[in-house]
Amino acid sequence: MSKLNINKLCIIGVGSMGGSLARALRENNAVESIVGYGRNLQHLTEAKKLGVVDEISTNLGDAISNAEVIVIATPLGAMPALFSEMKNFDTSSSVMTDVGSAKHFVIEAAMKAYGELPSNLVPAHPIAGTEKSGVEAAQADLFQHRRVILTPQDNTDLSALELIRSMWQACGAEVIDMQTEHHDEVLAATSHLPHMLAYSLVDTLARMDDQQEIFDYAAGGFRDFTRIASSDPQMWHDICIANREQLTKILHAFNEDLQRLTKAVEQGDSQFLKDTFTSAKKARDKFCEQDK
Amino acid sequence: MSKLNINKLCIIGVGSMGGSLARALRENNAVESIVGYGRNLQHLTEAKKLGVVDEISTNLGDAISNAEVIVIATPLGAMPALFSEMKNFDTSSSVMTDVGSAKHFVIEAAMKAYGELPSNLVPAHPIAGTEKSGVEAAQADLFQHRRVILTPQDNTDLSALELIRSMWQACGAEVIDMQTEHHDEVLAATSHLPHMLAYSLVDTLARMDDQQEIFDYAAGGFRDFTRIASSDPQMWHDICIANREQLTKILHAFNEDLQRLTKAVEQGDSQFLKDTFTSAKKARDKFCEQDK
Repeated sequence: MSKLNINKLCIIGVGSMGGSLARALRENNAVESIVGYGRNLQHLTEAKKLGVVDEISTNLGDAISNAEVIVIATPLGAMPALFSEMKNFDTSSSVMTDVGSAKHFVIEAAMKAYGELPSNLVPAHPIAGTEKSGVEAAQADLFQHRRVILTPQDNTDLSALELIRSMWQACGAEVIDMQTEHHDEVLAATSHLPHMLAYSLVDTLARMDDQQEIFDYAAGGFRDFTRIASSDPQMWHDICIANREQLTKILHAFNEDLQRLTKAVEQGDSQFLKDTFTSAKKARDKFCEQDK
Repeated sequence: MSKLNINKLCIIGVGSMGGSLARALRENNAVESIVGYGRNLQHLTEAKKLGVVDEISTNLGDAISNAEVIVIATPLGAMPALFSEMKNFDTSSSVMTDVGSAKHFVIEAAMKAYGELPSNLVPAHPIAGTEKSGVEAAQADLFQHRRVILTPQDNTDLSALELIRSMWQACGAEVIDMQTEHHDEVLAATSHLPHMLAYSLVDTLARMDDQQEIFDYAAGGFRDFTRIASSDPQMWHDICIANREQLTKILHAFNEDLQRLTKAVEQGDSQFLKDTFTSAKKARDKFCEQDK
């Protein structure tokens, strides 16, 4: 296997995710030159100053011209307009990919803009990230031993697919292909739902009368539990909108389960409480075991 | 202030909490001798082997005889029977305290057993702990910079109260007095509710068809978010029963808020989602700032 060396990489949206990819590829000598594109010149300048990208541009045509790989790392909500703008340029010799957390939405946005899905677009989603946003939070090792899910479509170009697979493998990730809808369902359950619960819990407590005191007496477990509620609100707004269908489904399922648990607490249903906590602990301990 | 030196400390229930207190007092030279009491000889033997306690006993009368301080560190559910057994012995020259997470329940259990609340009982609750249970998980520094809440009653003996305050201060904790009901309300919100959500989430996911895959694709945030679902099921069953009233109240409030959020996701209510996430992030970031 010849070593991956992307000649020109263009990152559209140089935040914590795009920036981490740039750093990871650089550290693994898998890229020659990286250009960062965005609308905010100050953010881009910061990215260059930090050494995350080599060149910056606020001109989309310049930024993507002759790029071997174009990575779309904007919030999901920015993608429809971005695809519409990109289709004005010839990107037929580039491979395009994204890092969005809801794949059906990305694919539909591209289809709408291009009329049909470009065969050189490889929808991708790295299952990694922290609650921190912005290029300052970019880490070269963010994808080490993490999973990246690709959701190739019927017409996806195979060499494009393999290039994106190699790109993520070069960052230390394990790359898996998945059906689009299944990806959106699994992520709704394991990522989007927990974020809703964390945001909702902190919001509930923040609206209590004795807000200040409430947070004063929160212990270490609360800190871990609510860490994801410090995530970027705009990004999570976009994810909710983009994966609305699957997220609504799992939210309804969770609501039902929580109401059943609430009733058990209210009625002092010992057996139900013990069974639920025991099976949850078992599942969680098993998950952590295999995660090691 | 003369240095605290507890002559004989009896720990009833030498698990992670009781064991951590023993280790902390030992490390700070605040205790002469520690006896561990429990029903399970194997656990007690382990506690002695680990150097957490000096002596062990499965005889309650022997264990508490001449103890300067008796710390009840059993699960809440064991306390009513324990108080009933303890009242058969003269503990008038000892100070009794506990570490239970629901104070109204403990006070009521003691009143029921003794006829009236013993004035030498100081209800206490260290806001500390991990998801790990058992004496092996005992850590001397568990209470460093943590808060311990005391809920003294009208008849609580002041010298008993100050002894327990000194005991926790010797472990590096910040000790605060609080009204019983207010403690139970605050803890329901900041500790008991998050545990319900973590248990319920893991349970919901564990009952999905593709359980194995679901957990395979869970990322780092999920690990942190669900850590508390690895807590001891028996202990949390007891907490639910013991703080049923306050926990039910906050569960209902949260259920309502989550249903409102679910509706907002379902209807794509951008403004509601942005507002909720933004205010939650603000509250959480502020909480973490002051927690540093």
